[in-house]
Amino acid sequence: MTPAALDDYLHSHIPITRAMGVQTRVASATLVELAAPLAPNINVHGTAFGGSGATLALLAAWSVLHLRLEAEGIANQLVIQRSTTEYLLPVSGDLVARANLDGVDLTGFLGTLKKRGRARLTVSAELVFEGKIAGRLSGDFVAIAEH
Amino acid sequence: MTPAALDDYLHSHIPITRAMGVQTRVASATLVELAAPLAPNINVHGTAFGGSGATLALLAAWSVLHLRLEAEGIANQLVIQRSTTEYLLPVSGDLVARANLDGVDLTGFLGTLKKRGRARLTVSAELVFEGKIAGRLSGDFVAIAEH
Repeated sequence: MTPAALDDYLHSHIPITRAMGVQTRVASATLVELAAPLAPNINVHGTAFGGSGATLALLAAWSVLHLRLEAEGIANQLVIQRSTTEYLLPVSGDLVARANLDGVDLTGFLGTLKKRGRARLTVSAELVFEGKIAGRLSGDFVAIAEH
Repeated sequence: MTPAALDDYLHSHIPITRAMGVQTRVASATLVELAAPLAPNINVHGTAFGGSGATLALLAAWSVLHLRLEAEGIANQLVIQRSTTEYLLPVSGDLVARANLDGVDLTGFLGTLKKRGRARLTVSAELVFEGKIAGRLSGDFVAIAEH
């Protein structure tokens, strides 16, 4: 999938991503990187709003797993069950969220999904700003295979 | 504070709340209830987007603590450090988030804040839909008293 295709998908299916100015930088089955400008996502402190940061990280985690399942030939619905976000540093510029499946062993998850049509996986994402990790999200997803 | 005043504050200081259509229903020093229509907050499944639900719950938790501190005469900055959201039921209509400080003992928190100028508190919020709890947020905030 091209970055522009993921942008189109997010903007048309999750319209708040358009208001946030979400832009896809990388969209692959192992890495998704999303950015959003500060202006529409600013908070009372003049830095990026935590709700926007958590949302961007959630979108990155959701997207990389969705793209990975599509690459495996599994049409899927992917539902978030629980997410935890740690806000480590204020972000005084554009938000950037990165979710990386490299090094994540998906064998058990994919096996269960193919066998039972349903499986759970925890996917992480990071907020990065000026080369530092400004936040971390851990999201527990349920994937449902569609036939 | 009136609901309209909290709307104005949120919409002008956190502009994404305007795009979400956030509307304050209750704004007091013990209870904040916020709503947001489904249309701008819809997801790929046709229900409310988890990121919007988590954001609305975070705003409710932040707002009730902020209003409580103002009612106590403490000008404050309130920063989120960590938030966990559980998504329990799909919301196929307007989002409603409610944060209630009734029954929460703030004595230690307020004492530390007055003494040291800084204190931490965990505030909860619920997403409610058709009389059921559709989601739960737990947010760890750091309050900083301003002089």
